[in-house]
Amino acid sequence: MKSYRKELWFEVPARSGWVNITPRVEECLRESGVSEGLVLVNAMHITASVFVNDDEAGLHHDFERLLERLAPHEPIRQYRHNDTGEDNADAHLKRQLFGREVVVSVTAGALDFGPWEQIFYGEFDGRRRKRVLVKIIGE
Amino acid sequence: MKSYRKELWFEVPARSGWVNITPRVEECLRESGVSEGLVLVNAMHITASVFVNDDEAGLHHDFERLLERLAPHEPIRQYRHNDTGEDNADAHLKRQLFGREVVVSVTAGALDFGPWEQIFYGEFDGRRRKRVLVKIIGE
Amino acid sequence: MKSYRKELWFEVPARSGWVNITPRVEECLRESGVSEGLVLVNAMHITASVFVNDDEAGLHHDFERLLERLAPHEPIRQYRHNDTGEDNADAHLKRQLFGREVVVSVTAGALDFGPWEQIFYGEFDGRRRKRVLVKIIGE
Repeated sequence: MKSYRKELWFEVPARSGWVNITPRVEECLRESGVSEGLVLVNAMHITASVFVNDDEAGLHHDFERLLERLAPHEPIRQYRHNDTGEDNADAHLKRQLFGREVVVSVTAGALDFGPWEQIFYGEFDGRRRKRVLVKIIGE
Repeated sequence: MKSYRKELWFEVPARSGWVNITPRVEECLRESGVSEGLVLVNAMHITASVFVNDDEAGLHHDFERLLERLAPHEPIRQYRHNDTGEDNADAHLKRQLFGREVVVSVTAGALDFGPWEQIFYGEFDGRRRKRVLVKIIGE
Repeated sequence: MKSYRKELWFEVPARSGWVNITPRVEECLRESGVSEGLVLVNAMHITASVFVNDDEAGLHHDFERLLERLAPHEPIRQYRHNDTGEDNADAHLKRQLFGREVVVSVTAGALDFGPWEQIFYGEFDGRRRKRVLVKIIGE
């Protein structure tokens, strides 16, 4: 069994944003030499998500509006987590709704995707350097 | 390490619907010959989900109502994604909330499930042929 | 390839609650002898979640409020699943929103976590014994 690990770093300049990380995961897969197996891609922070969806700007706007409606940033004081001095309770909630990780099949050395699947890093508490873990196992 | 891959195809006749795909995943597992490992089951489309829950019609109705309340289909024009000519922005959002994939343990050649766990394909933009990927790795 | 399986049992004394199961998953990992691979941790019940987030009491309160707002327990009769005699339809819905499972990378014999990642069991229909499955594969 082969095993490969890499951290991808990001600094999203606003509090929230979406980064298409598919090309970087594909680069990891090439480096790994794995042709059959699984790729795990997960946020290493608990105020960010990794998920698979479409690379379309209108949709990303709709994602942002959905999450802001379900777990609004303000008022800050509505969340008990923010009593600790933080202002990012909403970011923890948004991450819960969009998920931590994706597991993707590797077949014949490629990400085994349907026609529109793209891997995204979803940032909900940005303006600092944060990480995604790529772990690949297989043969 | 053994590796197995199969696509399951569906055509849900309405815009949304739930399909219990557990028997088809079990058939894949038998074909794979894997007795210890992991099964990944994921939607290959970004307007559908794969998840584990109960096969009970009342609950499926409740799922549909929850998702329609959180990400309503209409009015179509509330979503920027639909400015592209699509009418399925809500389907992308519903899929985000219900997830893309499940990973299931394989033990002694069977899906290693608790008493009521069943795998579902959740369709949010049906009336056309769509796919689920089953990938199995192990020994 | 090594393979390891263990069930962890819980009895949360209230209808809902959060249990940090990270130390128990770490103990499984030590027992498994796996140093490179993947850990799957999933609820074996469909009214509970396993997820990764922060071990902070204020945040757990915020999680509970979010889920109660999105899928309230009462009125019981609002859910068709409860027509079957159950009163836990909301627990099935909450579990959908918070997810069934996490997959965690194993690197150099340890859970490969960012600074604040902790694994939680989220109970939405407690007051009875329930289980989580830990499955580890690797070398």
